[in-house]
Amino acid sequence: MAISGVLRPGYVQLRVLDMEAALVHYRDRIGLDVVQTDDEGLVYLKAYDEFDHHSIVLREAPEAGIDFMAFKVASEEALDEFARRLRGAGCTVEEIAPDDKRHLGRRIAFTAPTGHRFELFATIGRADLGPMVDNPELWHTEPRAMRVQRFDHCLLYGDDIDGAIDLFSKLLGFSLTERVVAPDGTVIAAFLSCGMKAHDIALVRHDEKGKLHHVSFLLESWNDVGHAADIMSRYNMSIDIGPTRHGITRGQTIYFFDPSGNRNEVFAGGYTFYPDHPVRTWSTDEVGKAIFYYERALNDRFMTVVT
Amino acid sequence: MAISGVLRPGYVQLRVLDMEAALVHYRDRIGLDVVQTDDEGLVYLKAYDEFDHHSIVLREAPEAGIDFMAFKVASEEALDEFARRLRGAGCTVEEIAPDDKRHLGRRIAFTAPTGHRFELFATIGRADLGPMVDNPELWHTEPRAMRVQRFDHCLLYGDDIDGAIDLFSKLLGFSLTERVVAPDGTVIAAFLSCGMKAHDIALVRHDEKGKLHHVSFLLESWNDVGHAADIMSRYNMSIDIGPTRHGITRGQTIYFFDPSGNRNEVFAGGYTFYPDHPVRTWSTDEVGKAIFYYERALNDRFMTVVT
Amino acid sequence: MAISGVLRPGYVQLRVLDMEAALVHYRDRIGLDVVQTDDEGLVYLKAYDEFDHHSIVLREAPEAGIDFMAFKVASEEALDEFARRLRGAGCTVEEIAPDDKRHLGRRIAFTAPTGHRFELFATIGRADLGPMVDNPELWHTEPRAMRVQRFDHCLLYGDDIDGAIDLFSKLLGFSLTERVVAPDGTVIAAFLSCGMKAHDIALVRHDEKGKLHHVSFLLESWNDVGHAADIMSRYNMSIDIGPTRHGITRGQTIYFFDPSGNRNEVFAGGYTFYPDHPVRTWSTDEVGKAIFYYERALNDRFMTVVT
Amino acid sequence: MAISGVLRPGYVQLRVLDMEAALVHYRDRIGLDVVQTDDEGLVYLKAYDEFDHHSIVLREAPEAGIDFMAFKVASEEALDEFARRLRGAGCTVEEIAPDDKRHLGRRIAFTAPTGHRFELFATIGRADLGPMVDNPELWHTEPRAMRVQRFDHCLLYGDDIDGAIDLFSKLLGFSLTERVVAPDGTVIAAFLSCGMKAHDIALVRHDEKGKLHHVSFLLESWNDVGHAADIMSRYNMSIDIGPTRHGITRGQTIYFFDPSGNRNEVFAGGYTFYPDHPVRTWSTDEVGKAIFYYERALNDRFMTVVT
Repeated sequence: MAISGVLRPGYVQLRVLDMEAALVHYRDRIGLDVVQTDDEGLVYLKAYDEFDHHSIVLREAPEAGIDFMAFKVASEEALDEFARRLRGAGCTVEEIAPDDKRHLGRRIAFTAPTGHRFELFATIGRADLGPMVDNPELWHTEPRAMRVQRFDHCLLYGDDIDGAIDLFSKLLGFSLTERVVAPDGTVIAAFLSCGMKAHDIALVRHDEKGKLHHVSFLLESWNDVGHAADIMSRYNMSIDIGPTRHGITRGQTIYFFDPSGNRNEVFAGGYTFYPDHPVRTWSTDEVGKAIFYYERALNDRFMTVVT
Repeated sequence: MAISGVLRPGYVQLRVLDMEAALVHYRDRIGLDVVQTDDEGLVYLKAYDEFDHHSIVLREAPEAGIDFMAFKVASEEALDEFARRLRGAGCTVEEIAPDDKRHLGRRIAFTAPTGHRFELFATIGRADLGPMVDNPELWHTEPRAMRVQRFDHCLLYGDDIDGAIDLFSKLLGFSLTERVVAPDGTVIAAFLSCGMKAHDIALVRHDEKGKLHHVSFLLESWNDVGHAADIMSRYNMSIDIGPTRHGITRGQTIYFFDPSGNRNEVFAGGYTFYPDHPVRTWSTDEVGKAIFYYERALNDRFMTVVT
Repeated sequence: MAISGVLRPGYVQLRVLDMEAALVHYRDRIGLDVVQTDDEGLVYLKAYDEFDHHSIVLREAPEAGIDFMAFKVASEEALDEFARRLRGAGCTVEEIAPDDKRHLGRRIAFTAPTGHRFELFATIGRADLGPMVDNPELWHTEPRAMRVQRFDHCLLYGDDIDGAIDLFSKLLGFSLTERVVAPDGTVIAAFLSCGMKAHDIALVRHDEKGKLHHVSFLLESWNDVGHAADIMSRYNMSIDIGPTRHGITRGQTIYFFDPSGNRNEVFAGGYTFYPDHPVRTWSTDEVGKAIFYYERALNDRFMTVVT
Repeated sequence: MAISGVLRPGYVQLRVLDMEAALVHYRDRIGLDVVQTDDEGLVYLKAYDEFDHHSIVLREAPEAGIDFMAFKVASEEALDEFARRLRGAGCTVEEIAPDDKRHLGRRIAFTAPTGHRFELFATIGRADLGPMVDNPELWHTEPRAMRVQRFDHCLLYGDDIDGAIDLFSKLLGFSLTERVVAPDGTVIAAFLSCGMKAHDIALVRHDEKGKLHHVSFLLESWNDVGHAADIMSRYNMSIDIGPTRHGITRGQTIYFFDPSGNRNEVFAGGYTFYPDHPVRTWSTDEVGKAIFYYERALNDRFMTVVT
């Protein structure tokens, strides 16, 4: 009992225009560790507080954006069950064989109604320098740069978010935690959790399929949000907005861009969600406060710049 | 799927020697809100960020300590299932009828092998001034005093903790997250989670049954841990130890006593647990660092003073 | 030796359009204590960590803005010396008799080349609830609302800032700590300290005389900057910009408006200045980073909205 | 006017038993930068936010302790004036010629009634990597390890502290900010400021001459106090006490030991002092709260372990 099914976001594969510039960004500024570079030039990274082998995969490509996002599930049986359910709902499910080089067990992959590709997996290698287990110190080596603790979630933009909400909630067992609803009842934005976080994935209605709004990393505290902002400005990184706070989730946040134009977030805080909690609902006239609690207004960039 | 079975600690009923002194402590210093006082003189309180009607119940009595701790479960069916399992394991299960005056649905109660009484419930009233749901502000009214966010967990001392660990893990679906093990393999202390927190209940081996080591409240940050310490000293409250940090759970913490001698904790932080994570294990030669990461030594009071 | 002459900003008198609304703002949101209301309707306030009788005086008037800013000097002799110097430089100096009702000793007043009125005084009453002196607790009563510690400085807009810089540095002994300089050598903005703070008064070149850009209050930490932002949005107060950071002074900050349109700042941090430190200098092409280190751009409002 | 005479603590020379171990401590854990090693084996270090060439000098010696503490004064004329005053009071004053290799101008040296050697200087070289001056970033390179901002003060133990208080206050212009007084009027401890800090030097009555209680470094925040504690325990450094808070100065603090047994402090916060403020006074029955605000009791180690 307790937590079953989908456990958490596992990894995300991002397209970057220039790998060297991307590594300065993700490794030297955000503070991820490079754990592997493979024959195809993919670079695997992870945050200091993650047990799994990797959480971010970078692929050099002519266009920025997201290749896919993957979730870890509780067991191989859960993987079978999800494959069955997805197929039962008319979804095409691809089976991917275990891949030792990627430190991954078998995966299943599918495309959501928003056009995004997702993978599910039950097995992944253990990182060499993840959290300690025997008489564990707080960390093995001092967290550096922005000191992000983990890859946390993605916000994706797509057209059929109603379909995607259905898929995640009815087939994959996610809970809707929070949403923005237009006067006509249209859901503009939805925040979904597979556990006790305020969100593990978020979706915003948009006229194109398969877009990435941002990839988010967790920080320990508001103090680290300020420290991350210091680093961003010290090195003249491109800040989108923040430090600020979300009304939705209550997270304290900064948005910024990687050198390829992919938006990143580092954030701290946010409430603890339980499945018996009511769904928090925002009306579109309060959407400014929902997204940026301090500014109380959206900016065009938030609504239109995606990769 | 996702989270099911036992959701979280719901409430705890504490015995206090003097209700007025207890209210100064829990209401004016810790910052809980009194939500109800009943005919029997029980006083019900809650923290500002809790949806449920109450999380702390105070009962005036000649001896301090804990009457029982209650967990909220996901559904009435889960309640039935737990009753069945407990009885199947030879446990006496008491059925308690719904109680409108206490804003509680039906409960089941049982005594663990450590001598502690526990209750399970699926239904509780919604607090008037819990978190907002429609275009929610961060809080309804400014958090005050120590600004605790919720009742978080209990650490209980008892004799048969092996039996209690079995009960919580095998019958109630908790995960063992962390433990202290003696050279002969005896488990000295166990930390168990019903969700993604580093612990929802903790047990320490002790030669008496049914003892309370501490009741714990969550704070937002290390900054609030320092602020809580300021308040404790400003009002000459009895501090046990801290501000410090636990090696176990990594929580940042202070222990202190209520006027009746019941130990309280306020803490912040701690890692996120997932059921596929390894059990962190401490050996007894590192137990000092496990319990008090900065002091790296236990004090007698921690091991012997319980109510 | 050590610190002499002008010690610190003492108080500022502000014009507000509606006293009740102003009190909600300064007392209930910023957290100042009202210490006196006089026959003329002036309301005197102070922050919890100030020894002096008052630091903010509010006067209801048809137009917002600043009546005058006053500095406390080390002694009556220093007051005489400053009067002599000011007159020697051709400045008209007004002598104001001691005023028991205002808890003030004698003052001298003068108008700076920017058109702002300043007062100097050596004697002011001691607040009843200032910092404790005998076996002092951290504070007498818990700091509340935004928990500001003191009135810290003003930023004033005026035309002849060269003249004002000369007056403050040559006649009143202030040090220039930081400045923004145009390519033609014109000083656009100047930050002056009478002690070890990064600034006690700041001046920006502007085509009108006697304008107030903001009145600033000190917070303990970046954590309190975030908390202040929470309060501002919770109560829908008008935020100008922030939480952000200044390149100049390195202070962590938010600007916001009182109900009359006077800009306020709450901030934390900033470097310690010593008179042997070099003057930090910003060029106009980096003025964005100088003023708003994270945004790296000025906004029109910062440059044009003054009272 | 403004600040004159003694500006601030400049540097301190410490004796360490093993230079390699000392460098791991001061450079890799505290985070100071080594700026010079001279022919005699002295190692010069500084914190990232200091303009001066160095603030800590380490000398390998068979016994730990302090060689001398030096203060920077405002000018060569101030140096002459202090030499004259000290001699006028019967103090032997040594003149030390400028020393290019140490990046120091001329110094004067004297021994205080407590047996401690002090130096005064007006001229010191500028560090290559101190705070930036032209379009200054927050820091040149990311602060590392404990991220201390500066050498802040010393607490010295000696016999004739009355004589030393007189010397510092009457001859060198320091202000007494806070003190602990026994029932018979004996001053047990005195805290003296040459500027606006709550203390630049502190003295505790003790039966030996010339002892060092601790050398203190400033941190940005309580958050960094916690982070410093994390580093201390991660590397099993010897912690004396803390994280805790002082009643005196209100600083948030940890005491710990270097590998030679010299006590260090890292701290944040503390009030701003002005010379018109009253002297805060503690009675010996509250000395526990004065020194350790949370523990409210001294420990023997604090009173007896000095180098």
